[in-house]
Amino acid sequence: MKFAKVVGTVVSTQKDENAEGWKMMIVQPLGLDFKPRGDSMVATDAVGAGEGELVLLTSGSSARQTKVTKNRPCDLVIVAIVDIVEKEGEVIFKKFETKGFD
Amino acid sequence: MKFAKVVGTVVSTQKDENAEGWKMMIVQPLGLDFKPRGDSMVATDAVGAGEGELVLLTSGSSARQTKVTKNRPCDLVIVAIVDIVEKEGEVIFKKFETKGFD
Amino acid sequence: MKFAKVVGTVVSTQKDENAEGWKMMIVQPLGLDFKPRGDSMVATDAVGAGEGELVLLTSGSSARQTKVTKNRPCDLVIVAIVDIVEKEGEVIFKKFETKGFD
Amino acid sequence: MKFAKVVGTVVSTQKDENAEGWKMMIVQPLGLDFKPRGDSMVATDAVGAGEGELVLLTSGSSARQTKVTKNRPCDLVIVAIVDIVEKEGEVIFKKFETKGFD
Amino acid sequence: MKFAKVVGTVVSTQKDENAEGWKMMIVQPLGLDFKPRGDSMVATDAVGAGEGELVLLTSGSSARQTKVTKNRPCDLVIVAIVDIVEKEGEVIFKKFETKGFD
Repeated sequence: MKFAKVVGTVVSTQKDENAEGWKMMIVQPLGLDFKPRGDSMVATDAVGAGEGELVLLTSGSSARQTKVTKNRPCDLVIVAIVDIVEKEGEVIFKKFETKGFD
Repeated sequence: MKFAKVVGTVVSTQKDENAEGWKMMIVQPLGLDFKPRGDSMVATDAVGAGEGELVLLTSGSSARQTKVTKNRPCDLVIVAIVDIVEKEGEVIFKKFETKGFD
Repeated sequence: MKFAKVVGTVVSTQKDENAEGWKMMIVQPLGLDFKPRGDSMVATDAVGAGEGELVLLTSGSSARQTKVTKNRPCDLVIVAIVDIVEKEGEVIFKKFETKGFD
Repeated sequence: MKFAKVVGTVVSTQKDENAEGWKMMIVQPLGLDFKPRGDSMVATDAVGAGEGELVLLTSGSSARQTKVTKNRPCDLVIVAIVDIVEKEGEVIFKKFETKGFD
Repeated sequence: MKFAKVVGTVVSTQKDENAEGWKMMIVQPLGLDFKPRGDSMVATDAVGAGEGELVLLTSGSSARQTKVTKNRPCDLVIVAIVDIVEKEGEVIFKKFETKGFD
């Protein structure tokens, strides 16, 4: 899984019937320094994530193992909203407290 | 899923029998600035997309989860035509209005 | 799917039993300018492709969705021989006519 | 599979129901010189790994082939704790002895 | 599939139960010039490969399509030992003859 920040949304009326009802979020992958890595992508939301939150992305066929994405043409899903990240004994991210995140 | 622009088509008469009847489009992956990222690829069209449109691509095994691509040797499919992209509260793409797209 | 040119062959007598009977081709991925992109790889041939031809490659689990590769340890297959490539209204590749291809 | 060092942990209360009960570790992929390669990622632990240990990561759909990750939205799992690495006849890593690892 | 050279082995006693009994080899991916490309990885051996040999690697879910790796958390497998590589009509690798390989 990878860290990402939710930065926007996508609207599409003309889509595959198996993609109906999706909440599609724009997500910016992040490094462990919480700086952007690579390009933004579009992920299906399985957890009720909002803009500005730090989330975990699951990609590939494993992205279809949530209730929302089962048997759907989804290759990227938001599976978790991150509360705390600890690295080498130190808390480096805390929800509601770390600057730059909601 | 990733953003891409439809830029062309591919014709092939000699192909695997499970690939018969495909509409194959050339797609150029785009960043969130709608500039090209990496090389063009070939995607199967599941939504009736046309040249010049902004679309969403699904890759890997999830590309086989549309009616058109079920059980077929397809690793990239157009699953949606994009209407609106919103980033950090601002609309950055609107179909029929944003320059450079049809 | 990705564009590639067939550039060679591989022979192996000692292989997994599920890989018996494969025709293994060396393929060079190409950009839309038909110049090499990245390293050559080895693909199973599902369509009777020959050296010098422009082909389409399918990768990952979708590479197992041809009759030749079903249930086999294959992650890259030639699914189509390309006849015509059209980009933004212009034919940029035509089999038997475009230089550098057979 | 790839080499990685366990460097931290992630806590998430709001996650997909299929992701409940996971022990999520931050892992830093390593080259064969045991120096970092690319960005840290988040892996599910299937073997009881601890911070500072050298482990092997399995990615993609194969990451769901452990008891802990079966049918779950997991695309990266720790499948082994490494004891010994031998390269060209020479031991280049030994658990409890190689500096920089626990 | 990709070319690689077998360069070492990995020993692990503490691993997932579905990974028991694996022979894990360190493999260095190679270009068609047989020079290293990218970092070494760890592959399960399905063909009795030895150090110094040129082999073919299958990755992803297709890596589970050998008898040795069926239903196991394996994302990279050695599926073939290469005898001959021919490129544009010329033999560029021959087992037991090409320098730098056993």
